[in-house]
Amino acid sequence: MAEQEQETEHERDEDGYPLNKQAVSRIMYAVDTDDREMLWAEMEPLHPADIADLLEQSNAYDRRRLIKLYGGEFDGDILSELDESIREEVIGLLTPEVLAEAVRELDSDDVVDLVEDLEDKQQDAILEYLEDSDRLAVQQSLTYPEYSAGRLMQREVVMAPEHWTVGDVIDFMRNAEDLPEQFYHIILVDPRLHPVGNVTLGRIMAARRDVPLKDMVEETFHVIPVTQYEGDVAYAFNQYHLISAPVVDEEGRLVGVITIDDAMIVLDEEHEEDIMRLAGVGEGGLNDSVIATSKQRVPWLAVNLLTAILASLVIAQFEAAIAQLVALAVLMPIVASMGGNAATQSLTVAVRALATKDLTGSNVWRVLMREVLVGLINGVIFAVTMGIVGVIWFGGPELGYVIAAAMVINLVVAGFAGAGIPVVMDRLGVDPALGSGTFVTTVTDVVGFFAFLGLAAAFLL
Amino acid sequence: MAEQEQETEHERDEDGYPLNKQAVSRIMYAVDTDDREMLWAEMEPLHPADIADLLEQSNAYDRRRLIKLYGGEFDGDILSELDESIREEVIGLLTPEVLAEAVRELDSDDVVDLVEDLEDKQQDAILEYLEDSDRLAVQQSLTYPEYSAGRLMQREVVMAPEHWTVGDVIDFMRNAEDLPEQFYHIILVDPRLHPVGNVTLGRIMAARRDVPLKDMVEETFHVIPVTQYEGDVAYAFNQYHLISAPVVDEEGRLVGVITIDDAMIVLDEEHEEDIMRLAGVGEGGLNDSVIATSKQRVPWLAVNLLTAILASLVIAQFEAAIAQLVALAVLMPIVASMGGNAATQSLTVAVRALATKDLTGSNVWRVLMREVLVGLINGVIFAVTMGIVGVIWFGGPELGYVIAAAMVINLVVAGFAGAGIPVVMDRLGVDPALGSGTFVTTVTDVVGFFAFLGLAAAFLL
Repeated sequence: MAEQEQETEHERDEDGYPLNKQAVSRIMYAVDTDDREMLWAEMEPLHPADIADLLEQSNAYDRRRLIKLYGGEFDGDILSELDESIREEVIGLLTPEVLAEAVRELDSDDVVDLVEDLEDKQQDAILEYLEDSDRLAVQQSLTYPEYSAGRLMQREVVMAPEHWTVGDVIDFMRNAEDLPEQFYHIILVDPRLHPVGNVTLGRIMAARRDVPLKDMVEETFHVIPVTQYEGDVAYAFNQYHLISAPVVDEEGRLVGVITIDDAMIVLDEEHEEDIMRLAGVGEGGLNDSVIATSKQRVPWLAVNLLTAILASLVIAQFEAAIAQLVALAVLMPIVASMGGNAATQSLTVAVRALATKDLTGSNVWRVLMREVLVGLINGVIFAVTMGIVGVIWFGGPELGYVIAAAMVINLVVAGFAGAGIPVVMDRLGVDPALGSGTFVTTVTDVVGFFAFLGLAAAFLL
Repeated sequence: MAEQEQETEHERDEDGYPLNKQAVSRIMYAVDTDDREMLWAEMEPLHPADIADLLEQSNAYDRRRLIKLYGGEFDGDILSELDESIREEVIGLLTPEVLAEAVRELDSDDVVDLVEDLEDKQQDAILEYLEDSDRLAVQQSLTYPEYSAGRLMQREVVMAPEHWTVGDVIDFMRNAEDLPEQFYHIILVDPRLHPVGNVTLGRIMAARRDVPLKDMVEETFHVIPVTQYEGDVAYAFNQYHLISAPVVDEEGRLVGVITIDDAMIVLDEEHEEDIMRLAGVGEGGLNDSVIATSKQRVPWLAVNLLTAILASLVIAQFEAAIAQLVALAVLMPIVASMGGNAATQSLTVAVRALATKDLTGSNVWRVLMREVLVGLINGVIFAVTMGIVGVIWFGGPELGYVIAAAMVINLVVAGFAGAGIPVVMDRLGVDPALGSGTFVTTVTDVVGFFAFLGLAAAFLL
């Protein structure tokens, strides 16, 4: 069977992403002409993740027509791949029978991921479709806090008593009815169900039957508490190159397993969160409505308005100076803008280093000092440049001196505030990415305007 | 053996990251007191990745003392975990014997990763230490382009002819001398060595000996061309939840395999690059010197200076207006700042969506339209707010109208430019994260100043 299909897949790979513009056009043509056969032929080679992308990229009208024409079958994996913003909508478009079949195919961790953000009514409906044992597993997972390892883990684990041999475990697996779809390790447990080691399947297969499993446990073994924050779980997978890790309850008993593919998704989400928070964009996706998007973005714009007014109040103190020398109004945004840029550079390095735990108590002063010195050097470089520009533009050296001095002051402050503010936020237990950009540029705006206009008022007028 | 050690590891896990401030203090105390026994005891439970972090967080002086005291043995994995910025330095601190032993332990992909950025002299020295077959493998990998799948893959693969049964492959593995340390699939190949399917080890172990392997291949099978860009490889792993994928040469022959842990590292690096480029920070790490860091950051600051001067030239056109009404100078940064913030929001969403391939040809106009509408709505919200502030602050309605109108104009432009500029850059084959922040805020600065001062000059004076 697979030969033919894989050949096609391979061909598609050569030009990269299978869901290219041509493929989307053909699919939408099939929808427009109500051609179910063509639609099926086009969709068949697509991975559930690609189909989810297709649904996300379509507008609501096309989405409804597409799902309606696609008809009597819907891979459960498509649902778990779908962006949360349209998941409820798509679930609402499926008939109860199709939906029931879709969710029954999924592993317990995927069902949890699917239902945790749904409204109670939709959630209950989906849980109804599950077999009793699966429903119980999902409900139990939902009792763990959101964003915890308990929500992320799958409850299907393959474990073995620590005294077993290779032969024991092979016989056990041959006779097992219901092994998980994907697993990479046998978890050794002691009589109290505490995990004591991981054995990779590869080593088991290469070993003789009489070798005890505990002689071949992996060197790196990492146990995850069920209440651990998912971001820390992802960090551990990334840091220690874990493939799968057992999850334990408060008594240290094995309750589930987390695999690297789930950790990779969390890592990706954490990055998304960082990058969005740095820009002052709330949670939300490309599929949110105009109103929803506007709502997400207003809060940080409002904060920015307050800080911009603060900077304006600084300028207002020097109205008399500006009235005397309008060139000050022309030049002042340059000092503020350079400070804001330099501060964003320092800030981003600091936020990222905090996220990867590269910036810690033991090197924080060294990093802060480095940022200040970099600010000083770059301040001098651009002070000289801008001083010369000032002289040429406005014909006299005095304005050049003032802008040069303000530039140095502001870039030093930018280095210190840019690295320092996220560190302080982190110490206070606040996500350092959250709005620190606004705070930091407020500092450089205020300092930039004050230094430039203040020096000008003192020395030029 | 493992029992004791794992118990300790587990205890450490409870309070999170093992390399906490106390642990670092104890290690540095051991170094200060020249206490090798204590140093070894403290380092022994640490994972190579943690030891690499420790070296990165130390300054150069402590690093040298630590390595010297640590002495006669150095885990090769520490070297491959080390940040590139200090890798050469650390390699230079090791004696040839210790270095030779360290690199001989590593898989071929790790050696490639280790040596690819070293100077020729250091690279040759390390290759000398390898056994002939390993050296050949590494040298062959180095012939593939940088950042390609060929550099990322390991050449040790476990493959089986497509006609084999479960029994055949188990017997083969029992007798194999040198299986890779980590592998999760058996790759089925046809007689021309083209990969035709993946079989997970778990399924093999659960099956009877006489079942043909090709009846149990995985549904999702993704083949990676050896010259594919590593970012696209990471994308495929993330999108399709791959655990390992075969790599093929131009003739489609199996030449290696990439595993998810390597893809996860690339994903992490891609994110780092995105976030750094968005902030106009060049490549570089926390351990670069002040001078190196300054050099990395100057280019974008220079671009920013030019664009800031451009914005100032706009202001200069309205010197007469400002001289007449100094309040304009006080208020104009508010319009520019709000535009810059709104543009950064749109920009970040667009850059991120391009990176995850959620923003494509089929939905680009919908997304652009959404950003413009969001800009319009938020523009109206803050126009009203700021209009009222303007009236209160400066006592008359006219200035309020002008700032309100300029705010709406600038936030609409911010939405359009913020989402549009990265899309255009992407079409032109330039990384949309690279400097688009500077271009976008230039647009909002210029438009903001021009709209506000222009309207003021036209209607107020």
